[in-house]
Amino acid sequence: MKKTYLFTPGPTQIPPDVVLAEASPMIHHRTSEFSEIFSSVSEDLKYIFQTKEGEVFTFASSGTGGMEACVVNALSQGAKAVVVRGGKFGERWAQICETFGVNVVPVDVENGKAVDPDVLDDTIKKEKDVKAVFVTLSETSTGVVHDIEGIAKVVKGHNLLLVVDAISGIGVHPLMMDDWGIDIAVTGSQKGCMLPPGLAFVCVAQSAWKSIEKSDLPKYYWSFKKMQKALSSKTTAYTPAITLIMAAGKALSMIREEGIENVWSRHARLAHATREGIKALGLELFAGDASSNVLTSVIAPEGINIDSAIKKLRDEAGVTITGGQDELKGKIFRIGHMGYVNEFDIVLAISAVEKCLHENGYKIELGKGVSKVQEILVG
Amino acid sequence: MKKTYLFTPGPTQIPPDVVLAEASPMIHHRTSEFSEIFSSVSEDLKYIFQTKEGEVFTFASSGTGGMEACVVNALSQGAKAVVVRGGKFGERWAQICETFGVNVVPVDVENGKAVDPDVLDDTIKKEKDVKAVFVTLSETSTGVVHDIEGIAKVVKGHNLLLVVDAISGIGVHPLMMDDWGIDIAVTGSQKGCMLPPGLAFVCVAQSAWKSIEKSDLPKYYWSFKKMQKALSSKTTAYTPAITLIMAAGKALSMIREEGIENVWSRHARLAHATREGIKALGLELFAGDASSNVLTSVIAPEGINIDSAIKKLRDEAGVTITGGQDELKGKIFRIGHMGYVNEFDIVLAISAVEKCLHENGYKIELGKGVSKVQEILVG
Repeated sequence: MKKTYLFTPGPTQIPPDVVLAEASPMIHHRTSEFSEIFSSVSEDLKYIFQTKEGEVFTFASSGTGGMEACVVNALSQGAKAVVVRGGKFGERWAQICETFGVNVVPVDVENGKAVDPDVLDDTIKKEKDVKAVFVTLSETSTGVVHDIEGIAKVVKGHNLLLVVDAISGIGVHPLMMDDWGIDIAVTGSQKGCMLPPGLAFVCVAQSAWKSIEKSDLPKYYWSFKKMQKALSSKTTAYTPAITLIMAAGKALSMIREEGIENVWSRHARLAHATREGIKALGLELFAGDASSNVLTSVIAPEGINIDSAIKKLRDEAGVTITGGQDELKGKIFRIGHMGYVNEFDIVLAISAVEKCLHENGYKIELGKGVSKVQEILVG
Repeated sequence: MKKTYLFTPGPTQIPPDVVLAEASPMIHHRTSEFSEIFSSVSEDLKYIFQTKEGEVFTFASSGTGGMEACVVNALSQGAKAVVVRGGKFGERWAQICETFGVNVVPVDVENGKAVDPDVLDDTIKKEKDVKAVFVTLSETSTGVVHDIEGIAKVVKGHNLLLVVDAISGIGVHPLMMDDWGIDIAVTGSQKGCMLPPGLAFVCVAQSAWKSIEKSDLPKYYWSFKKMQKALSSKTTAYTPAITLIMAAGKALSMIREEGIENVWSRHARLAHATREGIKALGLELFAGDASSNVLTSVIAPEGINIDSAIKKLRDEAGVTITGGQDELKGKIFRIGHMGYVNEFDIVLAISAVEKCLHENGYKIELGKGVSKVQEILVG
């Protein structure tokens, strides 16, 4: 018998009630029945993004599509943007900007470190005519969380547009759209929102519309203006991913019921326990003090082929954790713990990591990780 | 007790086994388990598009996103394209082209009529430097099917790129990618593929790659090159809509099992019965001889507020048919009969239309439509 467990930094485990909602009978999207569900989802999304005055647009797309939407709506041909690059997803902002003729001023951050807001400040000061700053809340490729509140202070000090990739991060770490003055933020469904992948949610503050109105980059599917018009009629501009939106109706109401502050502190507690469990095994956190509560990235111990060990764990024991991507391949492994996760899941995840290391010849004291987790979460 | 029935031209009814597949436990998309499902889906899609040498790319997006992908990959800035406009979706091709700086030469066709390939031929002859022709297989807004085979002969005669919106049409009407020499075709999941909305499938023939290589329009999310590279590793460029792809695994295998020729002839038979049932009630087909097998569009009888009658039918009897869009609002109604539909569904649909007309004061002989359907489908 094989039971399967998902500890990946997206997609995440889906609560059974959300699966049931996704399996609801199909309805047509130009009906009052759909509009009612969609209105409620759109309101709940405002809560997730912690905004009262902003609007959230729901695209049928992956998170990357949502990122493209941010770029092509916010900027114009030849605009200059400062982009924080500290991993695969920071780099993605830069690639999208460059694709659309935006001049990128990179702020490069070493893998595993968070950007220093003062360094960002210095970069902006040295440049002329910067229009926008693009950053990442939780850099999934390295397991780092960036200090968006601190970054926002810097960016607002220069009166620039702040665009945040909160794809993995929202519903895990606080992100205060209104209070921090974020102009645009994007997330994907398969992360803290506990949904299958296939939806991108883009939150647009009133403060962003001046730039959006002026933007001359070509856009059709991604047009915020069309989405805003559709939203005012309680629908989307093009055929929505109906079953995923029905699932969102359930998943977001679960978050509302728990209370977003409680969701944040649950993740903080579980992530803390994961990190301590890992350290108790004598392993080192790749992101150190900058570790995200979305996932724990761990330096792969020497002498183990970590990627084949992870594959064996998945194939034989049914537990999916992930290795590193691109230049971090073989060097780290990552344990996702966001969304529908509680204390017993963390015990299970650390138990699986112990098993994986033990079976691949890395010497650990079996039980040392899980007992540390027990001590923190149960004690 | 209210039972609900969907006769809309997308989304369509979803077979229960497909719903179950969509509700499968979540898996990670960078695993051999996902690659296996995705490979099988990609192969089945080639069958649906009737291509051996082409490739099909699966985007998390609505059909419109897939249309945008066609434009930004196939053409370059300032290129000239002939676009057949005979309804809302033909117009959409033109709008997307114009958004990206493509010069549109429209071939306007009256609502409810199919384009005459000779007229298209004349237009192309009059123009210089046309690069591509954009057409629609089944124009959902009017209920017209266009003669893609005839159009392809004309377009190939001029050695131009042929791009077909087969969003509603594929899996209903024959579309022979290889045999007819179509270069690019796009469909959406929520039509003949019997899936929920949220996926766009774009089929790209080898013949299209010369233009794709040259294309200078900006693209990131929609890049065919990135999708081709990912497909060669049995995956997608960005996080796929995993549950919808698992559902596709089931739905497409159902089509393969029935045999695409049988699927086409089932739709032809059911559409014929629908049209005859409608005529037996003394109503007139909006698209006449050009009527699509995807949906039947009917001229709304005088003296009835058709949109409120449709709403009443949905709210009170649970049966969803649709009215006209944009300039056809209030003038037609549309009965979708694609995908998971059999003879009893047509009896039910015509029964509901009879009820709707009768209860809104339009004089018909009750039972005349359904008995005509019985005669054709059961007799």
